[in-house]
Amino acid sequence: MAIRIGIVGYGNLARGVESELRKNPDMKLCGVFTRRDPSSVTLRTEGVPVYSSSKIPEMKDDFDVLIICGGSATDLPEMTKEYAKYFNVIDSFDTHAKIPEHFAAVDASAKSANKVAVISVGWDPGMFSLTRLYSNCILTEGNDYTFWGKGVSQGHSDAIRRVPGVKNGKQYTIPVESALAAVRSGSNPELTTRMKHTRECFVVAEEGADKALIEKTIKEMPNYFSDYDTTVHFISEEEFNRDHQGMAHGGFVFRSGTTGFDGEHKHVIEYSLKLDSNPEFTASVLIAYARAAYRLDQQGDSGCKTVFDIAPALLSPLSGDEIRAHML
Amino acid sequence: MAIRIGIVGYGNLARGVESELRKNPDMKLCGVFTRRDPSSVTLRTEGVPVYSSSKIPEMKDDFDVLIICGGSATDLPEMTKEYAKYFNVIDSFDTHAKIPEHFAAVDASAKSANKVAVISVGWDPGMFSLTRLYSNCILTEGNDYTFWGKGVSQGHSDAIRRVPGVKNGKQYTIPVESALAAVRSGSNPELTTRMKHTRECFVVAEEGADKALIEKTIKEMPNYFSDYDTTVHFISEEEFNRDHQGMAHGGFVFRSGTTGFDGEHKHVIEYSLKLDSNPEFTASVLIAYARAAYRLDQQGDSGCKTVFDIAPALLSPLSGDEIRAHML
Repeated sequence: MAIRIGIVGYGNLARGVESELRKNPDMKLCGVFTRRDPSSVTLRTEGVPVYSSSKIPEMKDDFDVLIICGGSATDLPEMTKEYAKYFNVIDSFDTHAKIPEHFAAVDASAKSANKVAVISVGWDPGMFSLTRLYSNCILTEGNDYTFWGKGVSQGHSDAIRRVPGVKNGKQYTIPVESALAAVRSGSNPELTTRMKHTRECFVVAEEGADKALIEKTIKEMPNYFSDYDTTVHFISEEEFNRDHQGMAHGGFVFRSGTTGFDGEHKHVIEYSLKLDSNPEFTASVLIAYARAAYRLDQQGDSGCKTVFDIAPALLSPLSGDEIRAHML
Repeated sequence: MAIRIGIVGYGNLARGVESELRKNPDMKLCGVFTRRDPSSVTLRTEGVPVYSSSKIPEMKDDFDVLIICGGSATDLPEMTKEYAKYFNVIDSFDTHAKIPEHFAAVDASAKSANKVAVISVGWDPGMFSLTRLYSNCILTEGNDYTFWGKGVSQGHSDAIRRVPGVKNGKQYTIPVESALAAVRSGSNPELTTRMKHTRECFVVAEEGADKALIEKTIKEMPNYFSDYDTTVHFISEEEFNRDHQGMAHGGFVFRSGTTGFDGEHKHVIEYSLKLDSNPEFTASVLIAYARAAYRLDQQGDSGCKTVFDIAPALLSPLSGDEIRAHML
C-alpha cells in the first residue's frame, strides 16, 4: 500500500510536492490542508480533497506523513511541533540560528506522541549540510566554503521593497567567479563577505521617485547590502513581470584540506547545485525524507531527526540488494 | 577511552591510515598486522607494535576495529569475511561487479560473530556512491554520469607493462572537458565511452624495442584502449621516476534531471573530488567509517553494512547538538 501523504499549505513549495509526488509510485497524495477556505483552493491533481487546517487533529489516522510547507519565520515554529502530536511530519525549517530551539521543541512533541519528525530538509539546510558533515569527517584539517546563487534571496528582495519609492524589486545573490576559482585551486584563501558574493537588484520605482536616493539607500543598507558590491538596475514593471518571475537557485559547498604526515597533500571536495526551480527541488528532497520518516516510524523509532540522523538507504524506494548492485 | 584501531597490511593505503589517524584524537593506532616478517616492517609511528597476521585470531580482545588494507582481487574476498569472525572490520573493496557476493559472505560471518563489518568504503565506491544514491532519490527522472580523473588507472598501467618491449608504464585517465561541460549544462547528452575519457600513456621502452609496434599494440588493445582516444608518450626511465610517481586522482559525479508537471525545470547536481593523494583520501574515509562501525557495535548492531546503511552523524566525533548547531 502506498505511503499516504498530506501537504500542509498550498504555496510554491507545496505545489512542488504535489508535482513531484507523482514520480514516486510508492507514495500517494491523500489531501491538502489550508488555512484558507478549502473551497477557494483548486489543486492540479484531480480527486485529492482539500481540508481546513482545523481538521488536522481529527484526521490523525488518515495520513502516514504530513509534509509541512510553511514559512520558517512564523509558520513552522508553531506548526511542526503541533502536528507532530498527531502525525509523522517533515519540514524545511531554514533559519539556521534557530535550528537547535526548533529541534528541541519538535523532539519533545514527537517523542511524547511516539511519532517521527524530520526538520530542516531541503538543500541548505539539507544536501549542503550533508556535504559539510561528510567532508568535515573525512578532511579533518581544512576549511569550509559555501557560496549561494545565482538565485533570488527572498529576504534581500523584501528589504528592497521596504525602501521608500520602490514599487517592486528582486535581488539576486551571485557567487564571485574568481573566489570560486581560488577555492577550487586548493589554495585555502581567506575570503571576506565582499569577496564571495555580489548582489544585483532589479527595481521598479514608483512614478516620480528619486532613483539616485533609492540606489544610495539600497547600497548603504547595513547587514543586507553595505558589505557587498551591489548593482541596482531600474526597470519597468513590464520588464519585471516578464524577466524576474523565475525561481532558479543553486550554490556550491567546498571543503579544502590536507593530508599526510606533513600536510603535504591537498584535496578539494566540491558539491554544487544548479536548479531551475528552487521549490520543486526542495520538494523532491522533502519527499525522499518523507519516505524515510515513514520507515523509521514503522521500525518503532520516534523523535526529531535531521538529515544527519538518517541512513541514506532509507530514502530509496529500491531494496538494499538493488542499491548495492546498481549504485555502490 | 580512544577507539583501538588495528591496520591489516602496510602498503600505500595502510600508511595513509597511519598518517590520518593522528588527526583523530578519539582513535588510537594500536597495531599493524603483516604477512611479512614483522621485524622487517618499520612504522612511521613510534611505539606501535607490528604483528604477524597469523596472530589476528588470538588478539580479538585487543582491538575495537580492524581496517583491512588489502587488494580487492584476492586479499579482501578472503580477509574481510575471515577477520569479521573476531573483530569489527572495514575494507575498501572496489570490484563493483562482485560487491553483492562479497557483501553476502561478510554479512554471514559478521552476523554469526555479532560484529559489525563495513565494506567498499572510499571514494568510488564510497563518496561517489553516496552522491549517486542521494541524487537518484531526489531527482527520480534523470541521468547519471560518472567521470574519473585525471588520475592513474592501476589496471591500465598493468596492461601497458605486459606489452612486449615495455620496461615500465603508467596510464592516466582524463575526463573530456567538452563532455563535462555538456553534462553541466543540463542538456542530458548521450555520451559514448570515447566521448567521456581519454587515456594518456607514459612508456619506458626496453633498449632496441620497436616503439611503433608498442604504440600500435597499446592503442588497439581491446577493452583497455581500443574504445578510447589514446596517446602514447615514450620517455626515459629517469623522467618516469621523476614525473610519474604521484598518486593524485579524482573525478566527477553528476545527476541531471527534471521536475515539474511537464518536466519543464532542469536541475544539475555535481560532486567532484580533486585529490593529491588517492590513498590518503581513501584512508580518511575509512577512518570516519571505522568510528561508525565502532558505534554501531556499541549499539548492539551487527552484520555487513555499506555507506548506504550508515547515518552520517555516526561518522563525526562531534555530538548531535554540535553538528546541528554548526553544520546544518
